[in-house]
Amino acid sequence: MDLVRRVQAMQEMARQARGTGKKIAFVPTMGALHDGHLSLVRRARELGDVVVVSVFINPKQFGPAEDFARYPRDLARDADLCIQEGVDHLFAPEPDEMYPPGHRTFVDMEGLTTVLEGSARPGHFRGVLTVVMKLLHVVKPHFAFFGQKDAQQALIVRRMVKDLNLDAEVVVAPTVRHEDGLALSSRNAFLGPAERAAATVLSRALGRARQMVEREDVRSARAIEAAVREVLAAEPRARIDYVAVVDAETLEPREEITGETLIPLAVFLGGTRLIDNALVRPPAAPRPPAGDKA
Amino acid sequence: MDLVRRVQAMQEMARQARGTGKKIAFVPTMGALHDGHLSLVRRARELGDVVVVSVFINPKQFGPAEDFARYPRDLARDADLCIQEGVDHLFAPEPDEMYPPGHRTFVDMEGLTTVLEGSARPGHFRGVLTVVMKLLHVVKPHFAFFGQKDAQQALIVRRMVKDLNLDAEVVVAPTVRHEDGLALSSRNAFLGPAERAAATVLSRALGRARQMVEREDVRSARAIEAAVREVLAAEPRARIDYVAVVDAETLEPREEITGETLIPLAVFLGGTRLIDNALVRPPAAPRPPAGDKA
Repeated sequence: MDLVRRVQAMQEMARQARGTGKKIAFVPTMGALHDGHLSLVRRARELGDVVVVSVFINPKQFGPAEDFARYPRDLARDADLCIQEGVDHLFAPEPDEMYPPGHRTFVDMEGLTTVLEGSARPGHFRGVLTVVMKLLHVVKPHFAFFGQKDAQQALIVRRMVKDLNLDAEVVVAPTVRHEDGLALSSRNAFLGPAERAAATVLSRALGRARQMVEREDVRSARAIEAAVREVLAAEPRARIDYVAVVDAETLEPREEITGETLIPLAVFLGGTRLIDNALVRPPAAPRPPAGDKA
Repeated sequence: MDLVRRVQAMQEMARQARGTGKKIAFVPTMGALHDGHLSLVRRARELGDVVVVSVFINPKQFGPAEDFARYPRDLARDADLCIQEGVDHLFAPEPDEMYPPGHRTFVDMEGLTTVLEGSARPGHFRGVLTVVMKLLHVVKPHFAFFGQKDAQQALIVRRMVKDLNLDAEVVVAPTVRHEDGLALSSRNAFLGPAERAAATVLSRALGRARQMVEREDVRSARAIEAAVREVLAAEPRARIDYVAVVDAETLEPREEITGETLIPLAVFLGGTRLIDNALVRPPAAPRPPAGDKA
C-alpha cells in the first residue's frame, strides 16, 4: 500500500489513475478506523478500481473547547487495517500540508449547517465542508463514501456536491453497530466500562422511536420525541444534548410523521459526546433508495 | 462552434476531452464580449487544445441595488465573436440551470473579500467565488483565464484555487485599453459621449501614480493617493468611490511603497461605476512573473 503524505503527490496519483480510465473510490476518515469505516472501504472496493482512504483529523471542524487534542490517533494501526482491506493509497497529510499559512477560503451552506450538530458545534460544518471539498479536489474520486451515523454530515456533503457541481457520486452507507446496538464510533474508545454499558441507551431510544413509527403507526413527532427522551432519561449516566424529529432532507422540525423522517440525537456519557440517528417512515410511505437506512 | 446550455452536457464534454488527454482552456465571462475578453480567448487558444468560453451573468454577485437587470446581454453577438476566435464550446446556461431551487452552498474567504470592491459591494465576492468554483467543476479546465482589470477578483480566485487545492492553473492577463487609455469594460457601453470622454481620467490618474513610483521614486503611499485623487477631482463628471494603495497580495494598506503595490480605484461617471488599477513597484524592486502587469 502506498502511504501518501503530500497533497501534490496524491493529486498526481489521482491524475494518473483518471488518465488511465480507472475509477477512484474514496473514503475520507479521521482515522482510529473501526468496522464502520471498513464497511465503507469494502463498498469502495466494489465500486472503484483504485481505493483511497484519507486519515486527517481536521482541526477546522473542532471547536476550541472540543476534543481535537485528545481525538484518538494511531496511524500505524490504521495503515495495517488499510493494508488488510486492500486499500491502494492511504493519504495522511499533516495539518500544515492541508492548511498552509495564509489559508483563508471556506465552503459554507445556509440553513442545514446551523441546526442540530451545527447548533451544538458552531463552525463545525464549515470545517467539514471545507476539508471535504479540498479532499475531493486532491483525490478526484468518482465515488466518495460517508456513513449514515453522521447523518447531517452526509446530507450536507451531498448537498454541497450537488450545489457546486462536483463531478463525484456521494455514497452513504448504513451505520455499523455492535451486537448490543451501540453505533461504532472512534469516540467510543473514551468510554469507561460503566459508560460503555450505559451507551446502549442511544440505540434503544431510537429503536423505540422506530417501533412507534413503523409498527404502531404513531404520527405525532411530539409523542415520539417524548418517548425517546423517556428512554434516555431512564439511564442516569446519560445527559441529553439534543433529540429532534426532522424532515430527512430539509432538517426542519416535523409535527407529523409523513415522509422520510430523521431522528437524530446527541448524548453525553461522562465527558464523551455520542451521536446516533434513525431514519424512519410511516408504513405506507414509499421507501428511499437502498443504502440510506440507519 | 458548440453552444452548450446545460451543466450536464458541458460536464460530459469536459470529461470526454480530459479522457482523451486534451488540455482544456477556459475563459469565464458575463458576456458583452470585448477585446479584453478576446485577448483572454487568444491566450486560451495558445495554451489549450479545447477552448471553452462561458457567458453567464451571475445574479449572486450583484447587490440588490446594482445593475444586474440592465447589464448588457447579446448572446448572438457573443457567439459570433466566439466563432470568429475559434472557440470550441460556448457554455451559456440560464440562472435556474446554475442555481436550481434549493441551492444553498457558497464559497467565501476571510479578509480579501471584504475590502475595496468587497467593501463597496457586500457579498459580491462570495457570489464570484461560488460561481467560479461551480464553473471550474463543470468545465474542468487545465487553465482558467482572468483579466487584471478586475485585480481583486483575479487575486481571490487564485487564492481560492490554491486554498481549496483545485487542480487548475489561473492565468491573469493584462488589461486591454482603448487608445486613449480607458480600460475595456462591458459597462463602458453605459457611458454617454461626455462621460466617455471624461472616463479617460481613470487611466490618467493611474498613469500619474505609476510615473511617481517608477520614475520619480516616490515612496509615500499618502502622496501617491493624494496625487491620484487630485487628477480625478479635476474631472467634474467623475465621483470617486474609492482610491487605495495596497499590498498586491494581502490588499492591506501600504504606507511606504516597498514591494509590489496595487493601486485600485472605483469611480462613478453619471450612473456608471468603473474600476481600474495599476500594479506598480519601486525601480529597485524585483519584477513579478510576466502577465500580471496592468
